[in-house]
Amino acid sequence: MNTTEFRKRGKEMIDYVADYIETIEQRSVYPDVQPGYLRSLIPEEVPVEPEMYEDVVKDIERVIMPGAASPACTELETVMLDWLGKMINLPENFLAGTTGCGGGVIQGTASEATLMSLLAARSRIVRWIQADNPDRTESEIFSKLVAYSSDQAHSSVERAGLIGGVTMKKVPTDEKFSVQGEALKKMVERDRRAGLIPFYFCATLGTTASCAFDNIIELGPLCNAAKMWMHIDAAYAGSAFICPEFRPLLNGVEFADSFNFNAHKWLLVNFDCSVMWVKERADIIGAFKMDPLYLKHDHQESGLVTDYRHWQIPLGRRFRSLKLWFVFRLYGLRGLQDHIRKQVLLAKEFEKMVRDDQRFEICAEVILGLVCFRLKGSNELNETLLKRINSTRKIHMVPCQLSGKFVLRFAVCARTTELHHVRESWAHITDLASELLQELPH
Amino acid sequence: MNTTEFRKRGKEMIDYVADYIETIEQRSVYPDVQPGYLRSLIPEEVPVEPEMYEDVVKDIERVIMPGAASPACTELETVMLDWLGKMINLPENFLAGTTGCGGGVIQGTASEATLMSLLAARSRIVRWIQADNPDRTESEIFSKLVAYSSDQAHSSVERAGLIGGVTMKKVPTDEKFSVQGEALKKMVERDRRAGLIPFYFCATLGTTASCAFDNIIELGPLCNAAKMWMHIDAAYAGSAFICPEFRPLLNGVEFADSFNFNAHKWLLVNFDCSVMWVKERADIIGAFKMDPLYLKHDHQESGLVTDYRHWQIPLGRRFRSLKLWFVFRLYGLRGLQDHIRKQVLLAKEFEKMVRDDQRFEICAEVILGLVCFRLKGSNELNETLLKRINSTRKIHMVPCQLSGKFVLRFAVCARTTELHHVRESWAHITDLASELLQELPH
Repeated sequence: MNTTEFRKRGKEMIDYVADYIETIEQRSVYPDVQPGYLRSLIPEEVPVEPEMYEDVVKDIERVIMPGAASPACTELETVMLDWLGKMINLPENFLAGTTGCGGGVIQGTASEATLMSLLAARSRIVRWIQADNPDRTESEIFSKLVAYSSDQAHSSVERAGLIGGVTMKKVPTDEKFSVQGEALKKMVERDRRAGLIPFYFCATLGTTASCAFDNIIELGPLCNAAKMWMHIDAAYAGSAFICPEFRPLLNGVEFADSFNFNAHKWLLVNFDCSVMWVKERADIIGAFKMDPLYLKHDHQESGLVTDYRHWQIPLGRRFRSLKLWFVFRLYGLRGLQDHIRKQVLLAKEFEKMVRDDQRFEICAEVILGLVCFRLKGSNELNETLLKRINSTRKIHMVPCQLSGKFVLRFAVCARTTELHHVRESWAHITDLASELLQELPH
Repeated sequence: MNTTEFRKRGKEMIDYVADYIETIEQRSVYPDVQPGYLRSLIPEEVPVEPEMYEDVVKDIERVIMPGAASPACTELETVMLDWLGKMINLPENFLAGTTGCGGGVIQGTASEATLMSLLAARSRIVRWIQADNPDRTESEIFSKLVAYSSDQAHSSVERAGLIGGVTMKKVPTDEKFSVQGEALKKMVERDRRAGLIPFYFCATLGTTASCAFDNIIELGPLCNAAKMWMHIDAAYAGSAFICPEFRPLLNGVEFADSFNFNAHKWLLVNFDCSVMWVKERADIIGAFKMDPLYLKHDHQESGLVTDYRHWQIPLGRRFRSLKLWFVFRLYGLRGLQDHIRKQVLLAKEFEKMVRDDQRFEICAEVILGLVCFRLKGSNELNETLLKRINSTRKIHMVPCQLSGKFVLRFAVCARTTELHHVRESWAHITDLASELLQELPH
C-alpha cells in the first residue's frame, strides 16, 4: 500500500471507529455465536494473489463483529496460525484444524515462546518421572534437569533456563556455527552417566550472529529417542520458509515438539507478533493450567474452545491476528514470497560487492538477508570502521563475534529497501574504509 | 475527546504517519542525542488541568523524533512512570528521577509484574544465602523457598509460583477477605521452624473477587523484619490512588519492594499497560541480566541509561508510554480524578438500589467501582439469575465465590458509563429477578 492509498484507507478506518463508538449502544454486549463459528466464514487457506482492500475491510462486519472481541480474537488467531502453518508446509500435526491435537498461538516475542516451551518440557518430564516414581519430589527432579542449546543461541534461551530454574548447557557448533547431532549426543550421554536428566533442546534456525542453521534432521531423531523436548527457534529465518526454495532449511521440523518464528521480523507484520506452534497442546496447557471461577465459561471442557491464557505468560490478550489476516490478504502468498526473495537477492548483491573488494572478507555463508563481513585485518580496525559508519548516521549496523573475530553485519530487512540503497550503503562503507586504511602506517 | 474531534484528530494523525513515511529518507537513521536528553524537555509533573490537543501533538516532533524509537521509548517511559508515581504519591525511593535507585517500568499485564517480582525476590534470597553459605546450591535453596499470597489473590500469583518453581502458600483472610498480619506471621513462623525459607509475600489491594484490601501497614513491617520481598498487586484498585481520598488505601506501600497496577484497567489507557515500580532496580536487573555483544551499547555501564530488557520477560518493547503521555495531558490530573470519582459514585448508587430491595443483599463492602451482591437464597437461584441476565445480552456480569456463596459482581468501568446506564441495568436485573422468583414454588 503506497502512502496515497494509506491516507485514504486510514481515514476510512478512523471513521469506522468513530461510527462504532457512536452506535455502540445498538450492539449486543455479548456475542451470540457458537464455538468455532468463525472458521466456516473464511477460506481454509491464504489467497495466492492479493485481494482488494474493500473486500478485506468488508469482512470486519461479516466475520469479526458477530464474534466481538471474544471469541473472534481467539478463533481468528487459531485459523490464521493454521493458514501460516500451511504456508510454511508445517506437518499437519502442528495444526489445530477442527480435530487436531496441536495448534498455533501468537506470543509477544521469541523470548516468551522459548520460555513457554521450556516450562512445558519441564512439567512434562516431571509428570513422566513421577508417574513411575511417585516419591520423587519436583524440586529434586528440577535439580537434575539439563537443557541444551547452541553456543550461538540467542541470549533469551539462556535466560529461559534461569527463569525456569534449570541448568542450560551450550552445545559447541561446527565451523559453520551449526550444532551437529554428534555434539549434542556426546553431552547428553555424559550428563546421563553423571545422573542428570537431559530433557530439552532448543535448536536455532538462523542464529542471531550469522544466520546459521542447526542440523535438525540429525538432532530431531536424537531428541525423540532421548525423550527430550525439541523446540526450534527460527525467530528471523522462519518467514523465509514460505518460499519453497527455502523450505528445505526447515526439514526435520517433523521431529520437533514446538516451533516459533517472529512474523514481526520479516513478514511485513508490525511488532509484536511471534508465532508458535506445538504438536501436543495438552503439553503446553499442562504447564500451568488453572481455572478460577471468574474465568470459567460454558464451553470450558467441550474441547471446542481454545483457552490461550493457558498457552502464555500474560493472562490478557490483544487482537494481534487481525494484523496477520490483513497482511496475508493484502499481499497474498505471492506478494509475501516476492518480498522475501527480493530481500535475499539484495543481500546476495551486497555479498557480491564485498567479495569483489579484496580488502574485505565474507565471514559466514549468506543464506538469507544477512551478510557477515569484515576488513581483512585486526578486530580493532573493524571496530573503528563500525564506529565511524554508525557515527555518520547514514546507515546503522550491529556487530557480532564469530570465532573470536569482530564482524560487521549488513541486514536487509526494511519493507522499502531497494537496490540503490544497498549500492549507496556499500559506497558509503568503502569510502569510510578507504579513509581509515589510508590513515594506517604502512 | 468526543467522536467529532476524534474524526478530525485521527485523520490528522493518519496524514502525519503518511508524511513521515514519504520523507523518511531525509531523517537520520540513528538519533543524535545524549542519554537523559528527554527529561529536560518536558515538565516534571503531570498537568493538573487538560492541555490542548494541538500542544500535545506538536511535542512529537520536539520531544520524540529527535530521540527516534530509542532512546525516546525508554526515556519517556521512565519519566511517565515518575509522573504517575507522583500522582499516586509513591514514596520517593520508588522513583527514578536522575539519581534514584528505584524506578518504574511498563509491563504487559499484572501476571508479568508478579512473575518479575517473584523472580527478583528468588534471586535476591539465593544471593543473600550464598553470600554466607557459598556451598549451598541454588536448587537446594529453591527446594526450601516459600512464597505467600492471600487466599483471595488472583490465579496469576499462584501461576508465578509454578513458573518460578517455588512453593506458593495461601494465607487465610478475615471476614472482610483481607490478610491480616497475624495470619501471615503464624505461617511464616511455622515454616521457618520446619526448616523452610519464607522469601516473598504478594499482597493484594483490591482483590478480583470482591475488591478487598490486605492490611499492608501490618504486613509490610513484618515482611521487612523477616527479610521477605513484599510485592503489592493493585491491578484494578491502583488507578484510584490518584484521588487523595482513596490514597490511604495504599498506606504501607513504603514497606514494599515492588508495586504494580494496571493503568489499562481504570486509567483510560488502552490495553496493555501494566505499571510497576521497584525500590531497588538492581534487584530486578539482577534476576537475569545478560549482555551479548549484539545488544551492547556505548552507555552500558554509565548508569545514565535504563536497559528495560533486564526488567521484563520479553526482550523487544513497544512504545507504550506514548499512551500515558497523551492521556495524562489530554485529561490532566483533575480529569482523571473526575473519572475515578464518577465511577465510584455510580457504584455507590447501584449499591443503594440493591440495599433498597429487600430481596437482595450486598456481600462485600463497596469501596471502589465493584458491587458484590446476590438474591437472598440459594446459590442455584443466583446462578440461574446470572445465566438469565447474561443470556439476554443487555448487560454482562462475571460471578465470584465469597465464603461459599455464589455472588454476582456489578463493575462500573467503561469510559462512557452514565447514571442512566446504571439505573437501566438495575431495572433489568430486578425484572429478571421478579420473573425468576415468581416461578419458584411458594
